[in-house]
Amino acid sequence: MEARLTLPIETGIDREIRELMDRLGVDAVRNSDGTELPDWVSEGIAKVYSTYFPARGDKEWEAQSAGERVCQFLMSDPVTASSADPLEINVMRGYLPAQFRPDTDCDRGKYWQVIDRTTGRTLAPEEWSVVAAAPLPLVDPVAKVGEYPAEAASAIVTIAAPEPFHSYTVNFLAQQVWDSTQMYNYLTNDWADDPKRTKDQPYDVAYHRTWEHVRSALARWLQDHPEVDVVRFTTFFYHFTLVFDDRAREKYVDWFGYSASVSIPALEKFAQQYGYELTPEDFVDGGHYNTPFRLPTKRFRDWIDFTSREVAAKAGELVREVHEAGREAMMFLGDNWMGMEPYGPHFPAIGLDAVVGSVGSAATCRMIADIPGVKYTEGRFLPYFFPDVFNPEGDPVKEANDSWLTARRAIVRHPLDRIGYGGYLSLALKHPDFIDRMEAIVREFRSLHTESGGLRPANARPVVAVLNAWGKLRTWQTHMVAHALWYKQIYSYLGVIESLAGLPFDVRFLSFDEVLETGIPADVSVLINAGTRDTAFSGGQAWADPRLQTAVREFVWRGGGLVGVGEPTAASPAQGPFLALADVFGVDREIGWTLSHTRHPVATEGHFVTTDLQERFDFGEDPGEVVTLGATVLAQSEGSVRIAVHAFGSGRAVYLAGLPYSPQNSRLLHRSLLWAAGAEAEWASVLASTNPQVEVAYYPDVNRCFVYNNTDQPAGTHLTGPGVDEELELAPMEGRWLDL
Amino acid sequence: MEARLTLPIETGIDREIRELMDRLGVDAVRNSDGTELPDWVSEGIAKVYSTYFPARGDKEWEAQSAGERVCQFLMSDPVTASSADPLEINVMRGYLPAQFRPDTDCDRGKYWQVIDRTTGRTLAPEEWSVVAAAPLPLVDPVAKVGEYPAEAASAIVTIAAPEPFHSYTVNFLAQQVWDSTQMYNYLTNDWADDPKRTKDQPYDVAYHRTWEHVRSALARWLQDHPEVDVVRFTTFFYHFTLVFDDRAREKYVDWFGYSASVSIPALEKFAQQYGYELTPEDFVDGGHYNTPFRLPTKRFRDWIDFTSREVAAKAGELVREVHEAGREAMMFLGDNWMGMEPYGPHFPAIGLDAVVGSVGSAATCRMIADIPGVKYTEGRFLPYFFPDVFNPEGDPVKEANDSWLTARRAIVRHPLDRIGYGGYLSLALKHPDFIDRMEAIVREFRSLHTESGGLRPANARPVVAVLNAWGKLRTWQTHMVAHALWYKQIYSYLGVIESLAGLPFDVRFLSFDEVLETGIPADVSVLINAGTRDTAFSGGQAWADPRLQTAVREFVWRGGGLVGVGEPTAASPAQGPFLALADVFGVDREIGWTLSHTRHPVATEGHFVTTDLQERFDFGEDPGEVVTLGATVLAQSEGSVRIAVHAFGSGRAVYLAGLPYSPQNSRLLHRSLLWAAGAEAEWASVLASTNPQVEVAYYPDVNRCFVYNNTDQPAGTHLTGPGVDEELELAPMEGRWLDL
Repeated sequence: MEARLTLPIETGIDREIRELMDRLGVDAVRNSDGTELPDWVSEGIAKVYSTYFPARGDKEWEAQSAGERVCQFLMSDPVTASSADPLEINVMRGYLPAQFRPDTDCDRGKYWQVIDRTTGRTLAPEEWSVVAAAPLPLVDPVAKVGEYPAEAASAIVTIAAPEPFHSYTVNFLAQQVWDSTQMYNYLTNDWADDPKRTKDQPYDVAYHRTWEHVRSALARWLQDHPEVDVVRFTTFFYHFTLVFDDRAREKYVDWFGYSASVSIPALEKFAQQYGYELTPEDFVDGGHYNTPFRLPTKRFRDWIDFTSREVAAKAGELVREVHEAGREAMMFLGDNWMGMEPYGPHFPAIGLDAVVGSVGSAATCRMIADIPGVKYTEGRFLPYFFPDVFNPEGDPVKEANDSWLTARRAIVRHPLDRIGYGGYLSLALKHPDFIDRMEAIVREFRSLHTESGGLRPANARPVVAVLNAWGKLRTWQTHMVAHALWYKQIYSYLGVIESLAGLPFDVRFLSFDEVLETGIPADVSVLINAGTRDTAFSGGQAWADPRLQTAVREFVWRGGGLVGVGEPTAASPAQGPFLALADVFGVDREIGWTLSHTRHPVATEGHFVTTDLQERFDFGEDPGEVVTLGATVLAQSEGSVRIAVHAFGSGRAVYLAGLPYSPQNSRLLHRSLLWAAGAEAEWASVLASTNPQVEVAYYPDVNRCFVYNNTDQPAGTHLTGPGVDEELELAPMEGRWLDL
Repeated sequence: MEARLTLPIETGIDREIRELMDRLGVDAVRNSDGTELPDWVSEGIAKVYSTYFPARGDKEWEAQSAGERVCQFLMSDPVTASSADPLEINVMRGYLPAQFRPDTDCDRGKYWQVIDRTTGRTLAPEEWSVVAAAPLPLVDPVAKVGEYPAEAASAIVTIAAPEPFHSYTVNFLAQQVWDSTQMYNYLTNDWADDPKRTKDQPYDVAYHRTWEHVRSALARWLQDHPEVDVVRFTTFFYHFTLVFDDRAREKYVDWFGYSASVSIPALEKFAQQYGYELTPEDFVDGGHYNTPFRLPTKRFRDWIDFTSREVAAKAGELVREVHEAGREAMMFLGDNWMGMEPYGPHFPAIGLDAVVGSVGSAATCRMIADIPGVKYTEGRFLPYFFPDVFNPEGDPVKEANDSWLTARRAIVRHPLDRIGYGGYLSLALKHPDFIDRMEAIVREFRSLHTESGGLRPANARPVVAVLNAWGKLRTWQTHMVAHALWYKQIYSYLGVIESLAGLPFDVRFLSFDEVLETGIPADVSVLINAGTRDTAFSGGQAWADPRLQTAVREFVWRGGGLVGVGEPTAASPAQGPFLALADVFGVDREIGWTLSHTRHPVATEGHFVTTDLQERFDFGEDPGEVVTLGATVLAQSEGSVRIAVHAFGSGRAVYLAGLPYSPQNSRLLHRSLLWAAGAEAEWASVLASTNPQVEVAYYPDVNRCFVYNNTDQPAGTHLTGPGVDEELELAPMEGRWLDL
């Protein structure tokens, strides 16, 4: 039996740990923050993981590399000129001097910018001046921030002759003087109370000296830690964007943000390689900092590409060091992951052995499992063995069940190679019911590798591609702000990929650029375009390009399928319909310009798409008025179309107002995709379950299926498919293997 | 006593009518559709009104003027080319051949257009051809439409070599072969069942022959009708846009639409006067037909101006004829009112004696009452004496009460000069309770003229201007689609003017152009900008003009007030905040681009603005996420700011998410305007009522006030103000005069 299980262990409870490792079949162990591994781990009972931070925490190097901090372009608060008199802007207002200091020594004509936001004009450097200034005091002081570093500072920009009543901002280069993740832990996890800790200032491998140091430090560390089998990089060099405000509260968070990957040497190298210079505004982006919800600019995508190539080259060298020392290199997909784009073109060449990531949803589970170019993947499961759950009042079994039911849908479709846990095992051992449940989960997880014959379950014929501005680069990563957190504005769309993560389809992610460059791949049967207007996910202005419109129109006309969710293909045009492909969908979004058009909507009952829609359709947040231009309306509310289907040439389109994840909505998407592909006759080709709460995976090669109840209640279903016609009753959460 | 009352009368009930006229003090009578006036009206007991239709109904002229029909530019349904093969478009698909026929005889290179809607390119006339075609059959035939006219037809446009998968439309000139209002009555009021009626084809006074006929016909009619004292024009020449579909259902309705004011002679005259030619697309407007919700183009405003000047000149001549015959000329503000813009620059010169209009809301009541350049105004009150209400099961008293409570708020602020009723008096006489109630209403109406000393009540100091793209031209006419009808998308904004219509403020309507040309008038204290994004009412791209932004910013900074409702100043910018004046409001609209900005909203309790907000704030339709950038939040829900206040320089701004009309919301607006103007200390300067359901009007010159209960329940309030500090209890609906 392959064990496939990683546990955190610690000193002082040797007997219990060894018993548990035997019982669960643990084949890898790790320490946790604040725990030590027992000596006997070097006896080879299990692989030993150890976290490794390449770009922070070496206090000696930190002291020697003051000029080589990670940098970030920040935008000052906008300030409105109330006259033509000189206008002063304190650039650090609203920021935390404990996190950033303005770089006033750099070439400010190049790395600072003053912009009139009323007109969009960048002022000439002669029109403004900078003086250094003392840091602004912390508003409502937060003890946990402690003393400001000695170098804390601000700067005041003076615009000599502003236009009265125009609004101005300053883009400025700032050095990061406190690591973002560490700050987060100080502020939220009481690290401030631990006198052993000191604040880390991250250093940047873009500087040659620092890079040389990082390489040699790893070599030394490998020598000093012969017991470590797997170096778990956490992660590499650049943190996602995480900025704190002057009250030490989170101010800005973008899990996909490249703001903290900036340095003067990198910008100079970029200019050499790409033949043009990036400006601070290319990063600041009018204060939007290239949020993934904005249609990405060519310049920003160039920066991602550049950074990824740089990061891949350097990460590749560290991985090589690890391999040369006879160890494995694993990446934790978190914190400093910028540039380590697992679905980007430079990733496979890094040569990592494994990726481990936190499993929060089926989609994040697939995001890890589907990563190409690594030997194995590992999912870190919830709950952590931390006191917030593992206490006498806590219910760790419930947390484990929720986590498993959520992730299992994805794991069935593409099994992670391993699962693991984190935290303090001593806490978990006090909850024997949790240990029992963990044992059962691990057993079920292993069965997906063993009972399946090591194969993935069969997919329905239609190949599905999620079409947006990002495409493959953001595989399973659409509509996300902060990693796996719920936002009111995104859940109605996240449900699309959450559903897909557990549905029997081959799922791709396709970018508009790919369509323009090489067309829609021949094997794709259905496209999904999901999102609110003005975003990279629906596409916004990308749809103003007639080539994109005609490519998708032709694809559908010739028999393809198109599923739109929310405000698909919304293009804010000067004329014509609001949805660029309104003719394909047979619906349009009403934004106040067509109120004079009298509508006579009629909802149709009974359709393949809505067959399993038992309750009122929950589309989440209202995307706004949608009207039919000829589509058959399957659901409407408040005068607005919520589900509609439409034939277009030989193809078909489905419109859905939103799709928060639920078993019912997942089923609705499942049927929409089949219908759009004209494949409704194949409904049961990979087995079908009448109850949307019960899913089934079909393994034709071993003539078996796995049926799983996604609820914590008993559930019945009727299975049909090749050679199957069977009523089943499943226990709460049960997963059952059936021989066919 | 001035009688100020118009009643519909009829033959056959002479005694009852004479008694009622004495009792109510009727001083004008009119017939209704289908009734005759008794002979004795010529005795001079009361003025006699008679409706007059200048541009239709003369069957003899209709027969002689086949080439002089009213025309309209229509857009065909969009058709997508599925190959490069010739593409045929039947231009009348979706239209009713009983209403329109394509004008295939005109210069089609000029008056027809084929547009590639995927690129916006207008095709050269050589790229397409036209052939006449038989009319498409009526879908689901509607008997009431009857036979098509002999000239019913369609036309097929063939695009020789379309771009595959582009969408094409045809703009074409069509002749209107059935009057729109008459059609409406045939289809909805059973006129089709009346064999005496025949279908009217409207003729156009833009043709010289028709114009000469219309003039002489009026002269003859005046000679033939010596008993008529007041010629009630219904209305003049051009109908608002009202188009029926191929099922004879309403397809397009725009109370402000100028689509049916088109003719070749008018277009030619326009080109001479304005120095450029309008194209069909200037009217078709990408299928939006210049809905008033779109930011109006210069070309469309030129057309309104041109048509209004033409209409005013011709209407002026007819009015002169009426005056020369010793009669009065009255305009019914309805149906064929296009070009008779009562708030436009050409209106006063027409020399009308009076305007009469239907009173549906306080705002429409003010729209009539405030019209400049006429001697008197009259409001036609509800209910009509029609069988739908005046039947044994009907409750005409309730209808009368609802109508009076709605209109009274406006009438108090600016009294109409007269009120009137319509329909069949014989029906009303069967409801003595209704007659009693009418008598009381008329008495209360007259008291507003007599008890007030003939003066309007005092206003609070702040002068309020509603700022949008239309300004004065659409005084009291914002956010309307079809006259006085409820639409889900507008009620949250209509409440603003409905509230204003009854509040003690001097209210103006100001356009962006006026602000750009002559600045914000010096006596204006507070601006209101209300509407959804992308509309003429919030302003859309108009706010991209830095001059407009700075004018309003400076106005507020120097002490002015700004009240924004919904998505005020939303400008869809490429950079910076979404609301152009986000810095003034201290809030911004979140459209998916700032999700990474972490918000820490805190709602503040207790503020002058929300003092009377007893229940949860009902803002109507959700305008979308709004976040604070520094404003004080007074109400929030679902993570979104609903009410916020913000100081900006010496001025103040208030943000409201929406304002459906209710006494509570009217009060909220009242307080918002005072606070924004920095005038909260003057709250009681024109008397204040603690209960928002009870309003008060103050007449300082006669030292009186009028207190009125806007509900059908007893209501108490506490009045305060100059020399007043009094508890009051009012009966349901009561209006009470108090000497101070």
